[in-house]
Amino acid sequence: MAQKVYLSNYELEDAIKMYFNKLTNLRKEKEMVNTWDANGRVTSEAIYSLMSSPFYNSSAMDGIAVKSSATIGATDRNQIVLEEGKEYIVVDTGDPIPKEFDSVIMIEDLIRVDDNKVKIYKSAVPWQHIRALGEDIVENQLIIPSNHKIRPVDLGAMIAGGVNKVEVYKRPRVGIIPTGTEIVEPGTELKVGDIIEFNTRTFSAQVENWGGKPNRYNIVDDVYEDIKKSVKTAAEENDVVLINAGSSAGREDYTAKVIEELGEVVLHGVAIKPGKPVILGIVDNKPVIGIPGYPVSAYFIMELIVKKLIESYQGIESKALKEVKATLSRRVMSSLKHLEFVRMKLGYVGNKLIATPLTRGAGATMSLVRADGILEIPQSSEGIEAGEEIKVKLLKEEEDIKNTIVCIGSHDPIIDIISDFIHMRNKEYYLSSAHVGSMGGIMALKKEETHIAPIHLLDMESGEYNTSYVKKYLPDKNIYLIKGVKRLQGLIVKKGNPLNIKGFKDIADGNKKFVNRQRGSGTRLLLDYNLKKLGINPNEILGYEREEFTHLSVAAAVAAGDVDCGLGVYSAAEMMDLDFIPLCKEEYDVAVPEEYLEMDIIKEFIKVIKSEEFSKELDRLGGYEYSSIGEIVKI
Amino acid sequence: MAQKVYLSNYELEDAIKMYFNKLTNLRKEKEMVNTWDANGRVTSEAIYSLMSSPFYNSSAMDGIAVKSSATIGATDRNQIVLEEGKEYIVVDTGDPIPKEFDSVIMIEDLIRVDDNKVKIYKSAVPWQHIRALGEDIVENQLIIPSNHKIRPVDLGAMIAGGVNKVEVYKRPRVGIIPTGTEIVEPGTELKVGDIIEFNTRTFSAQVENWGGKPNRYNIVDDVYEDIKKSVKTAAEENDVVLINAGSSAGREDYTAKVIEELGEVVLHGVAIKPGKPVILGIVDNKPVIGIPGYPVSAYFIMELIVKKLIESYQGIESKALKEVKATLSRRVMSSLKHLEFVRMKLGYVGNKLIATPLTRGAGATMSLVRADGILEIPQSSEGIEAGEEIKVKLLKEEEDIKNTIVCIGSHDPIIDIISDFIHMRNKEYYLSSAHVGSMGGIMALKKEETHIAPIHLLDMESGEYNTSYVKKYLPDKNIYLIKGVKRLQGLIVKKGNPLNIKGFKDIADGNKKFVNRQRGSGTRLLLDYNLKKLGINPNEILGYEREEFTHLSVAAAVAAGDVDCGLGVYSAAEMMDLDFIPLCKEEYDVAVPEEYLEMDIIKEFIKVIKSEEFSKELDRLGGYEYSSIGEIVKI
Repeated sequence: MAQKVYLSNYELEDAIKMYFNKLTNLRKEKEMVNTWDANGRVTSEAIYSLMSSPFYNSSAMDGIAVKSSATIGATDRNQIVLEEGKEYIVVDTGDPIPKEFDSVIMIEDLIRVDDNKVKIYKSAVPWQHIRALGEDIVENQLIIPSNHKIRPVDLGAMIAGGVNKVEVYKRPRVGIIPTGTEIVEPGTELKVGDIIEFNTRTFSAQVENWGGKPNRYNIVDDVYEDIKKSVKTAAEENDVVLINAGSSAGREDYTAKVIEELGEVVLHGVAIKPGKPVILGIVDNKPVIGIPGYPVSAYFIMELIVKKLIESYQGIESKALKEVKATLSRRVMSSLKHLEFVRMKLGYVGNKLIATPLTRGAGATMSLVRADGILEIPQSSEGIEAGEEIKVKLLKEEEDIKNTIVCIGSHDPIIDIISDFIHMRNKEYYLSSAHVGSMGGIMALKKEETHIAPIHLLDMESGEYNTSYVKKYLPDKNIYLIKGVKRLQGLIVKKGNPLNIKGFKDIADGNKKFVNRQRGSGTRLLLDYNLKKLGINPNEILGYEREEFTHLSVAAAVAAGDVDCGLGVYSAAEMMDLDFIPLCKEEYDVAVPEEYLEMDIIKEFIKVIKSEEFSKELDRLGGYEYSSIGEIVKI
Repeated sequence: MAQKVYLSNYELEDAIKMYFNKLTNLRKEKEMVNTWDANGRVTSEAIYSLMSSPFYNSSAMDGIAVKSSATIGATDRNQIVLEEGKEYIVVDTGDPIPKEFDSVIMIEDLIRVDDNKVKIYKSAVPWQHIRALGEDIVENQLIIPSNHKIRPVDLGAMIAGGVNKVEVYKRPRVGIIPTGTEIVEPGTELKVGDIIEFNTRTFSAQVENWGGKPNRYNIVDDVYEDIKKSVKTAAEENDVVLINAGSSAGREDYTAKVIEELGEVVLHGVAIKPGKPVILGIVDNKPVIGIPGYPVSAYFIMELIVKKLIESYQGIESKALKEVKATLSRRVMSSLKHLEFVRMKLGYVGNKLIATPLTRGAGATMSLVRADGILEIPQSSEGIEAGEEIKVKLLKEEEDIKNTIVCIGSHDPIIDIISDFIHMRNKEYYLSSAHVGSMGGIMALKKEETHIAPIHLLDMESGEYNTSYVKKYLPDKNIYLIKGVKRLQGLIVKKGNPLNIKGFKDIADGNKKFVNRQRGSGTRLLLDYNLKKLGINPNEILGYEREEFTHLSVAAAVAAGDVDCGLGVYSAAEMMDLDFIPLCKEEYDVAVPEEYLEMDIIKEFIKVIKSEEFSKELDRLGGYEYSSIGEIVKI
């Protein structure tokens, strides 16, 4: 076991300043490219036209070119006849105007006499309908400024101005080295302990989006000399090198040592979370960065530091993300040790933008996929209370967030499918869900933080679902239930049910490993209700304390052989190819306040669940009854 | 001369609906690509994970894996010794946790005893510091919805979920045919009548930005059979065909006829300006579109119709441009015949967003380059008055517009250079200028539509520049002059001065062709002042009525041999390699209201003009004196 290496704790801004100051030799290289190949590139100097456009006087209309002096006095009553070749020539739009003519008469204003004669009935003003030389672009005019990202129209204007080659910043070549003995390429036959390499694939796509040229190397094992050789080569072959991972301080984290030996570690450790153990180094005058291995940490280092670097090679000023004000729905704690970045779900409920924190683990790739925005908690803050106004940096268009149904409550696999169907049918609509259990959904409705709440809450006395809970917890609100599905709940067990589990009694015999759902979830209530009825003490159940947040996670734990059983819905067992012991049918409905029922997005939600395609999908999943789906019941 | 063909006049929305309805066979083709190559592509189906991530329980920390039951009772006073191999194994972050262990203790919480023994001083909670199987992604979970544009993080999550191939919409192949006998490739030796082909280069870049694959063909002459053959081939080889130009109704406009013969013209002519003469056709069930030849018309057809088409192949819903409210600075007239799109310059002056229309000609490529936004004037409107509130669709980030110095007034080539310097030195700052002459600048200050106004106004009585005009026209405002340059004004004549022009008298002899500047420009005032002094009647000057808006346009007209002389600044003559007869020195200063002097962007303006680099640039241009540049004088 190696000694713990203590990392430095520079503030992000200071770290970036210190590092970029050291990179004085960061050369913005330039290159000449054909103007027609320059779309999206950044000009390294101002572009002046080399010729005028048009470069001769030309007709702006289809018609005839005339001497204006020869047309003076023409009126309706005193029409003047002009002869082709002598007093006029025919011109189409764009045709040059010979020196002897100074005006154009449109075809619409001509009366044909014969093949080479026309009559006109009003005089022509000098220079009418003529595009004068240089009307669009004048030779030597500054047409495109320096440090400008070339758009299609810019490219057109440059060619029009005779500029066929343009000097732009070179796209930096970015070497990306995945390291780690446990790391394997996707598609490899997997064994326990393997980790699929995907970070550097994400890096490559990011680098590409920022205008760099990604250059990914093969995976290097955790062998000091191999890593050193690979970094040395990459520093020779690229403008920037990224090494992933080995940036923290575990047994086999060689990155810092390698950079130190080949060049200089400018700093190791920045006071941000996730992303702390980054290594900012220099080898051969080129930036070499050790990116942390956890995907979320890696993401923030890429976005906060590497992006700036890649863009600065190209003369681009990184744009800050747009910031909006929002109300925090749940308390977020943070430490005084670092600036923390929290991924947030966002949704407009009523007039308020509600921000809900997502899972904060550095390994939670899906939290990045699902995030609508980022909350920054300053180093000086210990956290933010629920209900406080916060600023959130947007990862998504505000317009899209406005068109999003916020759905907080119990989880069922069909919620993801409804979300997909809504966006597929109506591309500007989205559904964003948070899985906090049925009671969590009721509380979100109470605090006006969600449009809808999927719930399945069994009234232990009446045996009825949902209604009594809404009445009890939301007495002041006009709530409706959009009827959902009746779904089978039961025990999810291994294929073939090798332990012959038949019901709740069997799981409390001290021999079966169980996995539970979180407190406040309807499924947990169902378990507790049944245990109580049967007089079983939860302590008798091995694994009662291990909580998962979705049916699928429960099924996954069983599928992996990690536990013997868990309580969940049929569809989850089916998706994982497991056996299922049905125990009861429950009503999974969607609670919605009256005022949201008329919203277009909620109407679309109802349309989707009533649709034939969705019924087919429910049949495919199995375990659902949907005879009254989409019906609206006032409570 | 062909008969005028009458085009149809469908409203844009109707035309698009009619055309897209006809394109029922518009197939969204799909293809499988490697997930790591799918950045920016659009999913054609929802993506479900094929495996869990992590797919085994793994350590979330560097430390040791233990049985939690073996740690119960450990305290500071009752430290428990554990033995490696028996009671623990060493684990790094990501290492698998063997079945016999259920908890991880961090390295920080261990006291080393010897090489294979540690002491602990608190008990380990079951499942602490363990990343459970499926913690991030559960097998069969919906990870990415359909119709989703894949981002780098999505790509990472898919690979983590075992998805190595992903089904996406095919990028449509777009055949682009430039036509026209007068059209030549850039780089060709030019003769009068030639038009450099740049439209289809712009189209290619646009198509690429929208996700399509551009496939540009060689230029086809205006020969009916050649165009027909080319369109036929392109329809076979591509998903969409664009033909440029030949979409209007002039002598050689064959596009409509060709499409009609090969397939169907759905409609010819839409009630928009620019862009009216578009042809929407279908050949072999594929969209074939005749794009108008004028670059601005072409731009709008591309943005309004072709973009929608290219995106719909890929399942992308076109996003509307963001709209903001602004105040119109100048009256804009429009006809009842069409929906009109006017390119606008935008700037925040005080608290108001001021929108100023740019040149409206369909050939004005530079108006597209310079536009910050688009004003749409509905078909039902005859125009909008100055001062009215309008809605403008943004082509630029609002933030960039806020960081823009608005500069309205007299033109000098140095304004373009200052603009370039400001952005180069400070990448978030911009300068946006409109050339309306000195008096136009004074009026813009009066109406509070500009931050600064460059002026050079000679007081005919005192012989002083600028001050008296500011006092007279802006009596209620606290205006300062930022001193600019003294510049040489004189007659710009052909190289070698073949007509031996020496002064104003020579240009009024009836033999010299002159080109004038627009009314309200300081240069025009200077001319009129001198003519009056000399007793010359403007009517005696050939070309007095032809007005240009900038010094460079005047010089360009002389350079082209189009006129013999014009009045302008030395630098313009120098840039065009022309001769110059100096007549007087004038003071070109910048008027600015007191309240803007403290703005960061105005401070930067002053810094730039006082900088050494800028002085060097003035020396290079020649004809400028700048001893007091950047001094601030209260009026």
